[in-house]
Amino acid sequence: MKRIESRSALQTALRPVWAAGRSIGLVPTMGYLHAGHLALVDRARQENDVVVVSIFVNPLQFGPGEDFERYPRDLERDAALLAGRGVDIVYHPPVADVYPEPPEVGLKAGRMAAGLCGRSRPGHFDGVLTVVAKLFHRVRPTRAYFGEKDAQQLALIRRMAFDLDFDVEVVAVPTVREPDGLAMSSRNVYLSPEERAEAPVLYRALAWAAEAIRSGERRAAVLLEGVRTRIAAAKTARIDYVELVRWPDLRPIAPAAKLVPGETVLVAAAVFFGTARLIDNVRVAVPPA
Amino acid sequence: MKRIESRSALQTALRPVWAAGRSIGLVPTMGYLHAGHLALVDRARQENDVVVVSIFVNPLQFGPGEDFERYPRDLERDAALLAGRGVDIVYHPPVADVYPEPPEVGLKAGRMAAGLCGRSRPGHFDGVLTVVAKLFHRVRPTRAYFGEKDAQQLALIRRMAFDLDFDVEVVAVPTVREPDGLAMSSRNVYLSPEERAEAPVLYRALAWAAEAIRSGERRAAVLLEGVRTRIAAAKTARIDYVELVRWPDLRPIAPAAKLVPGETVLVAAAVFFGTARLIDNVRVAVPPA
Repeated sequence: MKRIESRSALQTALRPVWAAGRSIGLVPTMGYLHAGHLALVDRARQENDVVVVSIFVNPLQFGPGEDFERYPRDLERDAALLAGRGVDIVYHPPVADVYPEPPEVGLKAGRMAAGLCGRSRPGHFDGVLTVVAKLFHRVRPTRAYFGEKDAQQLALIRRMAFDLDFDVEVVAVPTVREPDGLAMSSRNVYLSPEERAEAPVLYRALAWAAEAIRSGERRAAVLLEGVRTRIAAAKTARIDYVELVRWPDLRPIAPAAKLVPGETVLVAAAVFFGTARLIDNVRVAVPPA
Repeated sequence: MKRIESRSALQTALRPVWAAGRSIGLVPTMGYLHAGHLALVDRARQENDVVVVSIFVNPLQFGPGEDFERYPRDLERDAALLAGRGVDIVYHPPVADVYPEPPEVGLKAGRMAAGLCGRSRPGHFDGVLTVVAKLFHRVRPTRAYFGEKDAQQLALIRRMAFDLDFDVEVVAVPTVREPDGLAMSSRNVYLSPEERAEAPVLYRALAWAAEAIRSGERRAAVLLEGVRTRIAAAKTARIDYVELVRWPDLRPIAPAAKLVPGETVLVAAAVFFGTARLIDNVRVAVPPA
């Protein structure tokens, strides 16, 4: 496994791969890897000749007052984990390699970034799309792997690839969870023992909504209120948002609306437990009447 | 010369070129070709194995009330001109091929699009950058050719390639002019005989400024006022803007400022003659004291 820090070294390593037309799987991460990341890596390993994992905490996607500085980092641990998974290249550039100058031109998402996390984190997805576009150009992957936990990110990256004609297949990998249902996240490390004990309420509430939809509930207001009430029962929880949107276009479903049979909907939430802002979602096909 | 209308046919034609690692020169145009375009094509022909010319009037870069509908088009004439220049592929897609759905994700320029034409045409350069990024992805050119007449566009496309790590060399080609100095433009066709007779005042005024700078004039206000006065002498002219900026970062130079020896500056103007909005510019290295 090669560890590479610069764009030019990355090019040198990948040039023969490009020339030979071998397939490349890219797993973009911010590091501090957990089982969710490793599921992406394993899938990439199965499907490609060469696997590249990038580790880069992207300042462009953090807003003022967010956790860019304290975001957990442990490159040695990450590298050891990846070496055991058959990864070919770990690309872990410093900020100056990715942004030699503050960017003047970047990516910009429209309506699809207006709700969900985009509302709480203005500019976040523009920063995500900009760095992913750069990584796509630097690595030229055949396939790129993203987790379903970050559903809005996944939908936007797919849409970016479609709108801008990137020649890359965006592969979605299911969320990996702790035994009690909590979605794996590098930010779980922020949780105090009490918060950690309560955090699974997020997934339990969303799973309740999924089951209610499968059982015939169509009233958006009932679903939203049910999720909110269940989360609010945890005393360390503070809800950022609970939303219902269509998948994959992320069109909002108003509380007064009813779900349409045959459509796929996303029930998504962001909840603070102490200072940790955790997100999760479930995707459900609305059953026929 | 192949004439191609669809993205998939373009891929089919280019796949063997990509696989063989042959160089590709791309000349993106909106058609209605003139000698300025042909200079780009000739340069591309000299420097590359394969030359692709795109002809696409991009709706995304026209604002409401601008001339998208009446922009001149003559594909047969364009194709005949290009066949005589050794072009390999003319790609002239319909709007639905380029934008199968209205884009949700696009390119966005910051400060560099705030002045000059960007001030008069909000969103224009975002539309330009978005379509150029798409063409770069569809064609994968080794080099792409742009005219210096569209100086802000040139600076922004170069900056986009730098900021987003496109692996393409952006080649600038000098402005081609009529014998009386008027810059070649597809929009010159809008000019009435009287307007056409007066339009060369635009370049004469800018050329005066270039000469004044070379002769030691450093006062921005004197240069700006000199250009404005010369243009305003033409009775069919209506000035949109006259600006002085640094090249290539397009930082504005305030009227009260003095030019700095050693810097390169751009004197740029947009002027309406009747309904035709014409632009032109000169680039000058400020001589040492």
